[in-house]
Amino acid sequence: MQAIVDFILELDRLKGVTRKTRPLGLDRQENSAEHSWQIAMLAASLQPYAAQPVDIHRVIGMLLVHDIGEIETGDTIVYAEEGWEERKAAELAAVTRIFGLLPEAQGARFLALWQEFEDGETAEARFAHAADRAMPVLLNLANNGQSWRENGISHERVVKRIGPPIREGCPALWVYLEAQLEHARQQGWFGA
Amino acid sequence: MQAIVDFILELDRLKGVTRKTRPLGLDRQENSAEHSWQIAMLAASLQPYAAQPVDIHRVIGMLLVHDIGEIETGDTIVYAEEGWEERKAAELAAVTRIFGLLPEAQGARFLALWQEFEDGETAEARFAHAADRAMPVLLNLANNGQSWRENGISHERVVKRIGPPIREGCPALWVYLEAQLEHARQQGWFGA
Repeated sequence: MQAIVDFILELDRLKGVTRKTRPLGLDRQENSAEHSWQIAMLAASLQPYAAQPVDIHRVIGMLLVHDIGEIETGDTIVYAEEGWEERKAAELAAVTRIFGLLPEAQGARFLALWQEFEDGETAEARFAHAADRAMPVLLNLANNGQSWRENGISHERVVKRIGPPIREGCPALWVYLEAQLEHARQQGWFGA
Repeated sequence: MQAIVDFILELDRLKGVTRKTRPLGLDRQENSAEHSWQIAMLAASLQPYAAQPVDIHRVIGMLLVHDIGEIETGDTIVYAEEGWEERKAAELAAVTRIFGLLPEAQGARFLALWQEFEDGETAEARFAHAADRAMPVLLNLANNGQSWRENGISHERVVKRIGPPIREGCPALWVYLEAQLEHARQQGWFGA
């Protein structure tokens, strides 16, 4: 029991990992723990629109664990162009340590979910990626482009970076977002 | 698609619902969105210790949705003695409205999970309640009794209020917590 308690208290640190997006109407940055909750809810809601039939429970499991490595590395905005390999190696080391706090069978289950998300090869992982990538875009669209303007992110960069994974995992969501992003461009909600 | 977007943006408000507990090492109160994520992880980790075999996916689903009514009512500390019926009626009205934003089938699924948690009659709901009740206790134990001291909560009141549901849903966790709470009492970490 102490091992599980040590693990869950270690996870508490994800509440202190801040992202670039702000929750709507709040004067603070979003953290990765509340983001993980929200994308699990988004994926559950979007299930009928997944590109292929998915085991939604595995999708939710992946989304709940996928950011835990940030406890040691911090969040990096998806539009960062460099350093992804080093970052991914550091996240793997972090989750190996953190899931290693648990009894072996449970730790292995979480690590397998984390790795499936990283590999991005199953229908479930691709759908999970679509939800993860779409959520900050939806918040930015509702926030007049807050984090795009603050971080100098252009319309072209957003479309190039998030278009392919969202289209692949959840095509109907991409049709929706593409139109919304064009509207946002016309409103001047992008940086650079 | 717009219905799902409206729903997920409405859920964003749960990030602004504050609880009495503070995340470890952070100078702010915990919010109900990050709490929902953490107890889903706690339940997944504790599964081998559930009082009866449980469908862990339904447990996780319940924990992800159980606090959504607080978007309109706010969080009430579990040690409040009065007003529970009115509060529960207000939460039901809130989740009926919020889940009603979704296409009917998905909205009904979330509402059924919310209701199952509230009813507390299935093995899954009882295990979910144990995780929900245990998490703030674990944080308080790691925080030298922060919210017990700040809110004048006695050892007796904690044991009386959280002992039965945790013992019922996850007996091994209660054995652990009972000893830890006695240690906390000896340290003077309670109010009143």
